[in-house]
Amino acid sequence: MAAQATLEARMKRIRLIILDVDGVLTDGGIYMGPDGEAFKRFDIKDGAGIVLWRRAGGMTAILTGRSSKIVENRAKELQISIVRQGCTDKRAAYDELKKELQVTDDEIAYIGDDIIDLPVMKQVGLPIAVGDAVPEVRETASFATNHTGGHGAIREAVERILRAQGRFEEAAAQYLS
Amino acid sequence: MAAQATLEARMKRIRLIILDVDGVLTDGGIYMGPDGEAFKRFDIKDGAGIVLWRRAGGMTAILTGRSSKIVENRAKELQISIVRQGCTDKRAAYDELKKELQVTDDEIAYIGDDIIDLPVMKQVGLPIAVGDAVPEVRETASFATNHTGGHGAIREAVERILRAQGRFEEAAAQYLS
Amino acid sequence: MAAQATLEARMKRIRLIILDVDGVLTDGGIYMGPDGEAFKRFDIKDGAGIVLWRRAGGMTAILTGRSSKIVENRAKELQISIVRQGCTDKRAAYDELKKELQVTDDEIAYIGDDIIDLPVMKQVGLPIAVGDAVPEVRETASFATNHTGGHGAIREAVERILRAQGRFEEAAAQYLS
Amino acid sequence: MAAQATLEARMKRIRLIILDVDGVLTDGGIYMGPDGEAFKRFDIKDGAGIVLWRRAGGMTAILTGRSSKIVENRAKELQISIVRQGCTDKRAAYDELKKELQVTDDEIAYIGDDIIDLPVMKQVGLPIAVGDAVPEVRETASFATNHTGGHGAIREAVERILRAQGRFEEAAAQYLS
Repeated sequence: MAAQATLEARMKRIRLIILDVDGVLTDGGIYMGPDGEAFKRFDIKDGAGIVLWRRAGGMTAILTGRSSKIVENRAKELQISIVRQGCTDKRAAYDELKKELQVTDDEIAYIGDDIIDLPVMKQVGLPIAVGDAVPEVRETASFATNHTGGHGAIREAVERILRAQGRFEEAAAQYLS
Repeated sequence: MAAQATLEARMKRIRLIILDVDGVLTDGGIYMGPDGEAFKRFDIKDGAGIVLWRRAGGMTAILTGRSSKIVENRAKELQISIVRQGCTDKRAAYDELKKELQVTDDEIAYIGDDIIDLPVMKQVGLPIAVGDAVPEVRETASFATNHTGGHGAIREAVERILRAQGRFEEAAAQYLS
Repeated sequence: MAAQATLEARMKRIRLIILDVDGVLTDGGIYMGPDGEAFKRFDIKDGAGIVLWRRAGGMTAILTGRSSKIVENRAKELQISIVRQGCTDKRAAYDELKKELQVTDDEIAYIGDDIIDLPVMKQVGLPIAVGDAVPEVRETASFATNHTGGHGAIREAVERILRAQGRFEEAAAQYLS
Repeated sequence: MAAQATLEARMKRIRLIILDVDGVLTDGGIYMGPDGEAFKRFDIKDGAGIVLWRRAGGMTAILTGRSSKIVENRAKELQISIVRQGCTDKRAAYDELKKELQVTDDEIAYIGDDIIDLPVMKQVGLPIAVGDAVPEVRETASFATNHTGGHGAIREAVERILRAQGRFEEAAAQYLS
């Protein structure tokens, strides 16, 4: 009960959601062609979730170890302006981001899937694991989504945060009314 | 029993099926490449279902919030002549379509998967949810298909309507006889 | 028991396996890009099964309603020389094929997934349904595979036929010994 | 108990992991386009596993019957320098590799999925089957992974070996600490 109350309280404070790319915004597939990476598989419902979050005034950032034009394209489509690629040291990139956006650890949620995400997940107020994250990430997370990476995990996390903040109905008002 | 009779009656009246694209005609994947969207994943059995529906004299239309040459290509292949893309306001596009095709609300089925589809789903005589639609869409729908979006949901919905209308055998006659 | 004996006997006579493409050699996805169909998803284990069948002296043919360079490419890789595309009337194409290759109905297996395959399936000695075929196809088939289309259905069917013919060990000898 | 002790002992000796490509490093899909193979689907978590293995001082090699620029691209990204493509005789390629790298059979693990892998699997000290390998491969293997090919099978195998060697914590130290 106490733990649940704490989770509720943690979710209420979130202003910024940071997303890993491969395995979180995507299904973890590296679709490699003869001329390099051919594409990534993003999810339409995750995209709709990010749009809802922005409408509710929330900030979204992308933080990833790899680097690709593909991520830029999808970020642009979703109007995510904060994109940090090629972060071999995610912890350092996270500290910069925090300073630049003037948010504190407890106002930040991070959604991850693998051990490279752990250093940042241990810092943020709300670490979230996708449904198919590795065991170490699931154990560190405040909760794991039922949906897997690239198949609705982000949408589920966003909705859960928005509902905890009592703002889901408002963000989705034009569709629900 | 009464509810079932009503569903049967609703299905009998359908002349036009309106389809959402991402998550309904496709599996909801946004396959983004370095030069923009690389492709969409449509389904061969859904295609065969749309062909059956046309042979039975039914009309099909596509109504989508996003916009792409890809959808035009698939629509052409399936001989769907009514394609409305970039509809940020699906409700307004729906009203136009209804007027142009001279059909009434109760003659229209709409297959959707997400909350953006709700305003139109509340208007049509037969709102249908794909198997992996969000909870709000499932609750609004007359029924949800067993198959998920882009994996036979449309085929299943079309067959169910054709059978309710007693026209499936006729539409498929050249194969079944 | 009698039915099983019959199936065994039917399998023993097979010299030619005819394959549908979309939903049988592939997973049924139509991956459409801005410039037309981008690719099809074939399966490595299905390919290995077709190679085993050829080594055992069996013939393989492709018969499909659609038409694409993609199928030619994959057929070439698998050394399938008999490829008939754009067959709107599969029954007519089948009759031609039978004549040309001088095989009789009971020496032919056909693997299908949808009602368009029924007219030929009713002719051949061994009609086979992939695991995710529509109900009408499953009912017409001598058996349905456990694997779905584009995910090992062909491999499973080939192995079952080769084992019934007592030739699997021989065809796979270089690997099994 | 004795068998488990043996497996443990076998895993402790491994210095080189040899990987098959289609169905092991990938999901077994052959994604064929109009101009040839369009791409292969690799997995981000498998990639992270290979990186962990290298950090722990382990060697990785790729041995495959087919041949493609795609595999070169992915191998480069993962810093796998030993790549042998177009090996119609995997056994001969294996013997060469062993000599060149000066490793013995019992220091080598091989991850496979199909009967073409059997000749090498019977030679190595630690033959491993992916979760969706054919029955003959599962029977020959020391163990089968829970994850399927191209969906984490390699990561799982690598972690299991590293833990048996007591080196997982060290290899992942920068993330776990």
